[in-house]
Amino acid sequence: MAHEAATAKLCRGCWEQMHVPIVLRGPLAAPYRLFGVRPSRMNPNICTVCEKMFELVMRRRAIEIEATILFADIRGYTTLTQAMDATALSRLLNFFYDECATAIWLHDGLLNKAIGDSVLAIFNFPLRHADHTARALAAARDIQARCHEHCRRELAGYGLDMSELGVGVGIDRGTTTFGEFGTTHTDLTAVGQVVNRASRLQSVAGPGEILLSETAWRTLASADPPPERREVMLKGYEAPQIAYAC
Amino acid sequence: MAHEAATAKLCRGCWEQMHVPIVLRGPLAAPYRLFGVRPSRMNPNICTVCEKMFELVMRRRAIEIEATILFADIRGYTTLTQAMDATALSRLLNFFYDECATAIWLHDGLLNKAIGDSVLAIFNFPLRHADHTARALAAARDIQARCHEHCRRELAGYGLDMSELGVGVGIDRGTTTFGEFGTTHTDLTAVGQVVNRASRLQSVAGPGEILLSETAWRTLASADPPPERREVMLKGYEAPQIAYAC
Repeated sequence: MAHEAATAKLCRGCWEQMHVPIVLRGPLAAPYRLFGVRPSRMNPNICTVCEKMFELVMRRRAIEIEATILFADIRGYTTLTQAMDATALSRLLNFFYDECATAIWLHDGLLNKAIGDSVLAIFNFPLRHADHTARALAAARDIQARCHEHCRRELAGYGLDMSELGVGVGIDRGTTTFGEFGTTHTDLTAVGQVVNRASRLQSVAGPGEILLSETAWRTLASADPPPERREVMLKGYEAPQIAYAC
Repeated sequence: MAHEAATAKLCRGCWEQMHVPIVLRGPLAAPYRLFGVRPSRMNPNICTVCEKMFELVMRRRAIEIEATILFADIRGYTTLTQAMDATALSRLLNFFYDECATAIWLHDGLLNKAIGDSVLAIFNFPLRHADHTARALAAARDIQARCHEHCRRELAGYGLDMSELGVGVGIDRGTTTFGEFGTTHTDLTAVGQVVNRASRLQSVAGPGEILLSETAWRTLASADPPPERREVMLKGYEAPQIAYAC
């Protein structure tokens, strides 16, 4: 369950970066709640102030950060939407979102967006770690492991080709613009080439596969088992791109 | 600007469906704000209670609604992320989100999600209209018209192939599951085959093109100019699908 990842009593972002104690849980959290400060929906170990810290602290609407971007989605989802009824599909998505949330939060990422069967996570903001790409890869492996058995069991009765089902993941790393876009419908998210390439890599990842960009791969000290180097054609890119399948 | 669509003094959802007056703007709105009732970020003419009305009124986490789903995105966005710097890309996305919001709200839709260059809107919830597909089509045309000139001007200096730039739209209609998914990272959204097909149609729409599914097209009384009937291959569908290009 997702709550296993939500354990911090103090907001880790405020504490690690500003040494300000913001109480997230327990009776002492009540006064903070009064002022609208509560655990972030994107990562329950940080607070809502933290989510917007770049606005408050830096007085800017968007900042550039070095980050790792992870996209995960359910392979064969289009087929599933045609085969499953609404209740079964809702149950599958509930499970998928929860397992993604748990895995991402355990590795200090931010679950930024979920749209349909696709999940976007950011690593290295606002919780900073030099090894943010390794953490994203660990989260991806965790998502795969958590979903594998459940998906097999849940989907066994539909007469589908099981080799086409599973979770596909794309990961890229680099300078990313993080901020609020739009003036009325403001939306806190990451944009730019890194986000786009992670999304494109995810779209060509097979079931149960994690595809890393070359940049992301190079920052990893080691990988066990060794990955497979591959040239992939990504939509919008003229030349083939190097990807590493883990 | 997006605020041109945000004019209702009373929440239109609460008024039209329950005849309850919820004040959204002006001094009388203050007591409502105290209790956290404010204009919805997804449509400023309805309130945050309205957004969750199905939960409060119906005591369920998800409901099935007859709705029209619209996806819009920027064609050539991958190329743009490679050509533009962060500031220019942020400016383009700000503009795009705002124009989409205005067009969607003017036609009583809900701007449910924005991820990267992609926008998801829902028509017929919570503001109900028998002609929700016609409204979605009108919103799509509005988005195209608003973005066309701006994009040409903004992107002229990048040496890009202008025929590949523009907004692509996909529209489908049918029974859709709308609700909150995930237990910790709860997310209010629409899921199911209709949402998926709208997304797939959008991904094959050309720049400046609106692709409607056959179901969506059949509910429209008339269209001017007459659309072009086309067979398209959509990812995850074995047989070609009929689409109407407007």
